[in-house]
Amino acid sequence: MPCIKEEKEKTVENKDLDSGKEKMNIDDGRGTTVLRRDSKFEPNPSLSTLLIGKPLATADEADQTIGKAIGLAVFSSDALSSVAYAPQEMLIILAAAGVTAFNISIPLALAICGLLAILIFSYEQTIHTYPNGGGAYIVSRDNLGELPAQIAAAALLTDYILTVAVSVSSGVAQITSAYASFYPYRVEIGVLMVMLIMLINLRGVKESGKALAIPTYFFLATMIALLTVGFYKYFTGSLGQVLDPPMDILREHTVLQPITLFLILKAFASGTTALTGVEAISNGITAFKEPKSSNAGKTLIMMAVILGSTMFSITFLANQIGGLPSEEETLISQLARTAFDSRGIMYLMVIIATTVILIMAANTAFAGFPRLSAMVGEDGFLPRQLAFRGSRLVYSRGIVVLALIASLLIVLFQASVTKLIPLYAIGVFLSFTLSQAGMAHRWWKSGKLKPDEEIAEKGSFVRHDKNWLFKMIVNGFGAVCTFVVMCVFAVTKFTDGAYLVIFLMPVLVICFYAIHRHYKNLAKNLSLDDYISASRIARHRVILPIGGVHRGTLAALRYAKTLSEDITAVHVSMDENEARKVQQKWETHGDGTRLVILESPYRLFIDPLLKYIDEIDENRQANEIITIVVPEFVPRQMLANALHTQTAVELRMALRFRKDIVITNVPYVVD
Amino acid sequence: MPCIKEEKEKTVENKDLDSGKEKMNIDDGRGTTVLRRDSKFEPNPSLSTLLIGKPLATADEADQTIGKAIGLAVFSSDALSSVAYAPQEMLIILAAAGVTAFNISIPLALAICGLLAILIFSYEQTIHTYPNGGGAYIVSRDNLGELPAQIAAAALLTDYILTVAVSVSSGVAQITSAYASFYPYRVEIGVLMVMLIMLINLRGVKESGKALAIPTYFFLATMIALLTVGFYKYFTGSLGQVLDPPMDILREHTVLQPITLFLILKAFASGTTALTGVEAISNGITAFKEPKSSNAGKTLIMMAVILGSTMFSITFLANQIGGLPSEEETLISQLARTAFDSRGIMYLMVIIATTVILIMAANTAFAGFPRLSAMVGEDGFLPRQLAFRGSRLVYSRGIVVLALIASLLIVLFQASVTKLIPLYAIGVFLSFTLSQAGMAHRWWKSGKLKPDEEIAEKGSFVRHDKNWLFKMIVNGFGAVCTFVVMCVFAVTKFTDGAYLVIFLMPVLVICFYAIHRHYKNLAKNLSLDDYISASRIARHRVILPIGGVHRGTLAALRYAKTLSEDITAVHVSMDENEARKVQQKWETHGDGTRLVILESPYRLFIDPLLKYIDEIDENRQANEIITIVVPEFVPRQMLANALHTQTAVELRMALRFRKDIVITNVPYVVD
Repeated sequence: MPCIKEEKEKTVENKDLDSGKEKMNIDDGRGTTVLRRDSKFEPNPSLSTLLIGKPLATADEADQTIGKAIGLAVFSSDALSSVAYAPQEMLIILAAAGVTAFNISIPLALAICGLLAILIFSYEQTIHTYPNGGGAYIVSRDNLGELPAQIAAAALLTDYILTVAVSVSSGVAQITSAYASFYPYRVEIGVLMVMLIMLINLRGVKESGKALAIPTYFFLATMIALLTVGFYKYFTGSLGQVLDPPMDILREHTVLQPITLFLILKAFASGTTALTGVEAISNGITAFKEPKSSNAGKTLIMMAVILGSTMFSITFLANQIGGLPSEEETLISQLARTAFDSRGIMYLMVIIATTVILIMAANTAFAGFPRLSAMVGEDGFLPRQLAFRGSRLVYSRGIVVLALIASLLIVLFQASVTKLIPLYAIGVFLSFTLSQAGMAHRWWKSGKLKPDEEIAEKGSFVRHDKNWLFKMIVNGFGAVCTFVVMCVFAVTKFTDGAYLVIFLMPVLVICFYAIHRHYKNLAKNLSLDDYISASRIARHRVILPIGGVHRGTLAALRYAKTLSEDITAVHVSMDENEARKVQQKWETHGDGTRLVILESPYRLFIDPLLKYIDEIDENRQANEIITIVVPEFVPRQMLANALHTQTAVELRMALRFRKDIVITNVPYVVD
Repeated sequence: MPCIKEEKEKTVENKDLDSGKEKMNIDDGRGTTVLRRDSKFEPNPSLSTLLIGKPLATADEADQTIGKAIGLAVFSSDALSSVAYAPQEMLIILAAAGVTAFNISIPLALAICGLLAILIFSYEQTIHTYPNGGGAYIVSRDNLGELPAQIAAAALLTDYILTVAVSVSSGVAQITSAYASFYPYRVEIGVLMVMLIMLINLRGVKESGKALAIPTYFFLATMIALLTVGFYKYFTGSLGQVLDPPMDILREHTVLQPITLFLILKAFASGTTALTGVEAISNGITAFKEPKSSNAGKTLIMMAVILGSTMFSITFLANQIGGLPSEEETLISQLARTAFDSRGIMYLMVIIATTVILIMAANTAFAGFPRLSAMVGEDGFLPRQLAFRGSRLVYSRGIVVLALIASLLIVLFQASVTKLIPLYAIGVFLSFTLSQAGMAHRWWKSGKLKPDEEIAEKGSFVRHDKNWLFKMIVNGFGAVCTFVVMCVFAVTKFTDGAYLVIFLMPVLVICFYAIHRHYKNLAKNLSLDDYISASRIARHRVILPIGGVHRGTLAALRYAKTLSEDITAVHVSMDENEARKVQQKWETHGDGTRLVILESPYRLFIDPLLKYIDEIDENRQANEIITIVVPEFVPRQMLANALHTQTAVELRMALRFRKDIVITNVPYVVD
């Protein structure tokens, strides 16, 4: 009685539509469409609910904006935290030439500050051109095209993964510096941290939440304290040498290398890891108060100043106290205990603050990676699933993937920052280069335009800009510098592990394109343009494989009868008596349905069945469809499934590529 | 045009029936049944074909019979091989009381020979009563009932597994005795051997194949050579002491225990492992030439004599040469190199022969385990699948299971015979006890009968037997002895590992019964007695979940139309615009089918759908059935599946216990 059902639908629909706050505009013209709004729908609690909290409705998405002060704190943790390892990594390289080479790190630090300035200068321009956020991916997609965009994506994704691995490892290193007894468990601690951050992010953190500002300012405070004390003592000459510094790295270098240009460049490359994360702000502009761009811009500069000065100061002081790079005690720890002449409360503060901000840095990657992979997923270069937002409004899948890969790296590289660094900065600088190049190209185009003419670019609009030339030069210069640094990095660190990334990058890009091709074909296959609605199916043939005659098979038969009149029950017989029994029972219960008995001399079950289906398949006419109805036991206890052969599954695997063959299993529940 | 099809079927059938050599008698009364005989059907080759050879037809099963000489060789490898470890294991126990205690092993060996005599005597009776093979399982099933039978099954199965583990480990020990350098790899070698034996058995070995006789006779020959030389030198006083014997075991015992009764009994228990495998013949009677029983009986006695004498001689001589038990060099090896005064060719012969026969012993377990588990499976106490014979006419699944568990044991116990022994003999003696007790009970019943009266027992017939009393006493005595030995074993070895088996046994039996219950319920659920054929399904409702409107969905719709007129397409909407697009497209392509749009505020897909299905489920009348037609992409490349969400699978899991809900996925192949 369909009419009644119709009735019900209708009423439901009306009720819902009225109850609905903002009415979804679905035109109900022909009465064929029914909209069900379920405002009261509550997903039932589960383990995941317990772990990550109850689902959030899409409507709950709030976007609060933040000022410069908070913005600085929120977006610079990644960049600032890198001072915890960058100076030390420089020294580790220089150590190969002995302690005398250490003071080279001071000019290097200055050079890096210079590079930072250039970078900031040209990013500042990006921020004003992309007020809605201009990550390297978007910029290069808009201005350079698909391939560069995908390269940028590959670079950024690897970069995010390494940010997590490096930051967490460095965080662990801080802890083990204070409590050496934890050193043997550094890998476990690291993985545990990652899992924790993952959970937090699965719950969903407001990336622009004020709470996140506290640790950054705590870190800044401790740094200021440390550096002021340090410099005060330095100028008053009361800054002593670090007591029994860790010798592990120096001990490795029994024969000293000469100080070559290569060595210096290599040290420089290590130092550039301090610049990782400066792009963060340009991704998050939308979070700022109006005027967004200028606020973001100012924040960017502020951050750069802090980052540069801290980085330089640490390098400088570390040299004065004769701090030694080490896997066992970080430079920060040595500096702190020397400046505060003890492992007292202040020392602990520094360690804690550093650890926390490093974890915060990892956390920002947990915001960036899923967002980017979702973007790439929507563009169809990564599995679409990455673009679905989980119950907590976050891209859960991306978060989990990131956590897993990062943990894997931590395990493989034994949570050693020094071993991870060579893989790190390439991705970062590649993305820098691409986004700067993209901007430069954009200015060049805008130069070609007449005043206040504008052309639509893929994503955005290109307007004429009167000082396009200057801006082009700035971005162009930035691109060149970052590109050079990338090359230096790739060459000097190649054998230390950079080759991995250099090899991985193209592989990733190739995968992206493979995925893209798949989705493109799919779309082409599925598109309804020039689609001639297929003729209605004329004939429906049902095949019913039966092992024996029992309620299960009869249930299946009963269902089969609703599909078609043309049913053939098929029994694969491995034993004559069995077959005879089946036949007799079928005569009584099969109510007249044709039964075919296939002898299986080799006691195989699937193969003869397939062969039979093939035969039918061959001589069937157009728009005839075959449905194979498989009776299936569904035991209440999961384990009991092991006691039954899953015919349907095997058949489905065997016939998956056949056109117009459908396999249905009619479940028969047994308690 | 069904008629045509009918035609075809008919012709096919007639042709086939004529072509068929021996016509399968299927009465084709109502013309509803069609028999297809496919003599030319050849399964297509595959990896498995390569490994285990091409399938064998059931008809190919040949049964050749064998004489006593061959029979002895074929069935006694298991029993005889145990002389390779039994004497040594006795010494290992006695070692706890120091070398002086070793000569206790000689009386113990005699005692074991006595036990063997009793055992043989009472098995001889079993053979004559069960000319078709009377394994412990059958005997106790026929005469003691279900529970004892299942206990016997559990005992025998564990016993078979341990036979493989112990024999292979001992085999490896022989090799490492000759070539100590292999000692570190003993586990790998052991596992490799098991896998090899598995493959051979998957190919299918004629258990009664004459080929298998050779190794046994080779072993016997070498043993005779060894012992003659040994005794000759002993009597001529030229039998020296073993040169630098392995000290590893003695070294362990720094403080010597006193010689307690417990210690002696424990040593005795270890020795009784020599008796494992004597039941083999009683399983294989059918393989013998007529008069089967008497031939088998004579063979049994022959075997017992050889086994007893060899076992005793080895123990005796080992004591004379001051051989020491060891994990590093077997007693056999020490005896051989002492008797032949070198590690020359004869020595190697002995080692090789011993290794080979031990592997043969493992091989017999590979015949026994699958056969038994198939039997138990047919009785419904183990998964039925175990009773299916594979393409090579062997119970492939059983073989694989045995190989895996045995390998696991070898790994866990580091291929150490001494560590495995405590788990071993309990199962054996438990099965001995049960089968003897069964026989005794049988005689008792037969005693109650009048002359030449006979009653049908479960499996067999019980006839009156005039000297039933004597026979009952024999078997009864046998049962008692084996029972006592089992208890001694269990008590003395409890802490060494016997507790594992004692714990495992009941667990196994409980599992057997759980499985049995499941199958019983299933049978009850499915049985057609008092089955009122269910009323024809009155109404068929189709639900068609669609993610979007494309060829895939339309293909599914096209199929759905063949099922019923009452179709509802359901779109779960997470995004308003998306929903509107779907709706518009549906208006053009959905040709009038009702579309329901479910808003999913939490971006969940399955849950709202389930909720909707529930609602429909609630208010549906009797014999209305719901089919959920799920469009599914089938990409050609396996990997590409990762790029699509498998809705059908999730739905099937969620709805598996619902009555009268069928889930069909209509595949849409995309290249």
